[in-house]
Amino acid sequence: MSEKLMDVDLLNDIAQEEFEEIYPILKKQLEKLHRDIWDKGIPVIVVFEGCDFPHAIDIIGKFLLPLDPRGFKYHHISPSSEPDLDHPFMWNFWIQSPSRGQIAIFDHSWYARLLSMSIDGFDDRIDEIMNFEKMLSDDGTLFIKFFMHADVESISSYIHKWYGFASDDSLCHDNSISSSHMKGILDTTSTHYAPWTIVESICPEYAIIKVMSTVIKRIQTALSQDSAVPSPTSNAQVNSSCALPFRNYKVKDREYKGELANLQARMKVRQKELHELGQSLIIVFEGRDASGKGGAISRLTSSLNPRTYTVVPIYAPNDVELGHHYLWRFYKMLPLRGHITIFDRSWYGRVLVERVEGLATGDEWRRAYREINDFERSVVNDGVKIIKIWLEIDKNVQLKRFIDRAENPDKVWKITADDWRSRQQWHQYTEAVEDMLQFTSTEYAPWTVIEGNDKNYARLRILHTILDRTSDI
Amino acid sequence: MSEKLMDVDLLNDIAQEEFEEIYPILKKQLEKLHRDIWDKGIPVIVVFEGCDFPHAIDIIGKFLLPLDPRGFKYHHISPSSEPDLDHPFMWNFWIQSPSRGQIAIFDHSWYARLLSMSIDGFDDRIDEIMNFEKMLSDDGTLFIKFFMHADVESISSYIHKWYGFASDDSLCHDNSISSSHMKGILDTTSTHYAPWTIVESICPEYAIIKVMSTVIKRIQTALSQDSAVPSPTSNAQVNSSCALPFRNYKVKDREYKGELANLQARMKVRQKELHELGQSLIIVFEGRDASGKGGAISRLTSSLNPRTYTVVPIYAPNDVELGHHYLWRFYKMLPLRGHITIFDRSWYGRVLVERVEGLATGDEWRRAYREINDFERSVVNDGVKIIKIWLEIDKNVQLKRFIDRAENPDKVWKITADDWRSRQQWHQYTEAVEDMLQFTSTEYAPWTVIEGNDKNYARLRILHTILDRTSDI
Repeated sequence: MSEKLMDVDLLNDIAQEEFEEIYPILKKQLEKLHRDIWDKGIPVIVVFEGCDFPHAIDIIGKFLLPLDPRGFKYHHISPSSEPDLDHPFMWNFWIQSPSRGQIAIFDHSWYARLLSMSIDGFDDRIDEIMNFEKMLSDDGTLFIKFFMHADVESISSYIHKWYGFASDDSLCHDNSISSSHMKGILDTTSTHYAPWTIVESICPEYAIIKVMSTVIKRIQTALSQDSAVPSPTSNAQVNSSCALPFRNYKVKDREYKGELANLQARMKVRQKELHELGQSLIIVFEGRDASGKGGAISRLTSSLNPRTYTVVPIYAPNDVELGHHYLWRFYKMLPLRGHITIFDRSWYGRVLVERVEGLATGDEWRRAYREINDFERSVVNDGVKIIKIWLEIDKNVQLKRFIDRAENPDKVWKITADDWRSRQQWHQYTEAVEDMLQFTSTEYAPWTVIEGNDKNYARLRILHTILDRTSDI
Repeated sequence: MSEKLMDVDLLNDIAQEEFEEIYPILKKQLEKLHRDIWDKGIPVIVVFEGCDFPHAIDIIGKFLLPLDPRGFKYHHISPSSEPDLDHPFMWNFWIQSPSRGQIAIFDHSWYARLLSMSIDGFDDRIDEIMNFEKMLSDDGTLFIKFFMHADVESISSYIHKWYGFASDDSLCHDNSISSSHMKGILDTTSTHYAPWTIVESICPEYAIIKVMSTVIKRIQTALSQDSAVPSPTSNAQVNSSCALPFRNYKVKDREYKGELANLQARMKVRQKELHELGQSLIIVFEGRDASGKGGAISRLTSSLNPRTYTVVPIYAPNDVELGHHYLWRFYKMLPLRGHITIFDRSWYGRVLVERVEGLATGDEWRRAYREINDFERSVVNDGVKIIKIWLEIDKNVQLKRFIDRAENPDKVWKITADDWRSRQQWHQYTEAVEDMLQFTSTEYAPWTVIEGNDKNYARLRILHTILDRTSDI
């Protein structure tokens, strides 16, 4: 951040005649640049933050005027709106993040939400904010953040004029919190990829010109770069020395049936307990083709109350999802309080199929380890438990199951040319799986690897794992 | 409805051994049929209605078991969940309607919501429900509705056992309302396209078998029909005798500027009044290419507070939207209470571009007049005002504007090959517009046709129209 909050001359202003000369020029420039970022597919996030600043509507309104409504979405984060307790802190901002070529304008943002919170967990939230900005910016999003600055007198008189009374519904209601924290927050969160610009907003004409010329400059810089996506620095080192544990366990049918019924009954009770406690649970199933994910999931759910669990099968993203950061769609699928969401494949597609099939660049899948860890940490911080299961089979078992499917008219739909093709990349998948287990098995969301050669064994083991991991609730 | 509520023998049951023989067969059949409806792209809605019926979880759970989680979504409409007052009555059911090839299962539904309401507006709601079922069914959706029936004693003892207490959170809490209304509702809403099946649910095994065999039979019938989309009977007669009113008004620049500023100032005040009263407003802009919709919209919004209006530009649907009824995406865009949503093109695309370009069949666009009227009526019934503006220009003016765009480097992006192509179908569009005005200009949502040859005149006229139509709030 080049400017400091305290050094700014709040009395900066501009004459009306000068404004009327400059504004139409900037308006035209921005109109043109808006089409350019659209054509180039660059997502842009513009943040207006600060107290309930004077002339807010005029300033933002004048900024919106040249924008084509097809290409932007305006979000007002009202101080009076209840924080969303059913979802993680950054959830709705993720949901509202712009798709490629779109501008999302936040009239107050995650920073206002942060300030409205109690001090408890403040640092975690700052981390989440910085992860959010880093992840989206690594994915090509341009961040333009404005801190609209004014003195307390101007703000009070503005609020009084606009609302007709001293509003409690103001983002300045507790000035002591705002001022003591704000400077620190601005310093901490002003990064090279998402810097703050302080705007003196007592004179609205001055503020409008400063906002528009900053946006124009930042967009021009982004357009002049070779690629919209800045090159990330990965903090994950790839190596493949970590081998999967593997033994051939077997469970006989008779033993299996009794044990299964017992575990399912316990699972049914556990689901009710989780629901009553409001404890949410995510269960991630990953595994090679034909490793038995579907069968295991149906054994898990067959005794459960459908009212508080969902199975979410993950396939190739549709065109709306492709327009967003790859984690976007998973944010939309997080469980409600007290509910269980079972993912049949998940965000790990980024470091598995997308890595092996070349659907993500090396930069993209390498930085995904950190992104996924950050994502899971923020979910866990919000009280959701995550259980991740890797179901492993060996190459012969997969072949046997593929042939079985191909020869059985009831199962033939389950096997496709893709399956045979990805089988040829067995080794590349193994490497990807080993990296995934090594880099994303965290204390708060560890992987459990389960041997799936014997379906009976795997199904019981999975139920045991889930019961064990939820026994401490 | 073949069966009557009072004639049903509640004591119907089935022996456990018989169940264990039949269930696996039905399970396998349903598993297969689920894939068939998926392949054929038939959307299915299964409704479970009735009091908080005994064994609900078991019955629904057993029905879900054979379904592939990729192909269904389960929705629990809890009696304790607050009705959504920010949206029209059927809003969230529209949002949750299945895409092609998917099954949506409603564990309680719009009928439970209807029963939980006060008697006020009951008949309107019944109309909306029947329109919903008719529209989706005309669009190819298969409706399978179960009324789960039991005697009051069984229900009470079930609730007591399950919840451990006499729950207020039960759909039977007011038996007098349920029983007196339910028979009438079942009779009224049992149509040939969405018939009710009464299921005696004291014996869970009996209920499961009846549910599954009914679903299987209904799906088999749907599959055996030549087309998934039943042929609709249109109640709209098409003729083209109604001519557009047309005169060449003109407003001089000087007069325009003063009047515009005056109207914009009034509009700003009106927006604040609407917001304070919680009055929502939809403004629909339709008009030929280059008729000046965009310019008119930006004159309308330039003085407005961005916090309570949105401009929604409508283009070709994306692949997610294409998977649903064409009205689905518009339900998602309805305004919040006290907000203004401005549609730059709208659902009228169905009877304009989709009709002219052959993107909708004759059956589809003909029945759309009724569907759109029903849609708008339900929105108006929920307290939203709708203002619809058709901006008309003549053929020479369009040509002049096209050439102007093509020659101006700042505007050339606004003109595409599509524009020139659709110009060749001027006459077909005229016919479509005349039909649209004739069949969808209702008392509750009338069209206003505005002559757009002179932009100054049109922009002022539009602001006048909106101010007039909202003056009675």
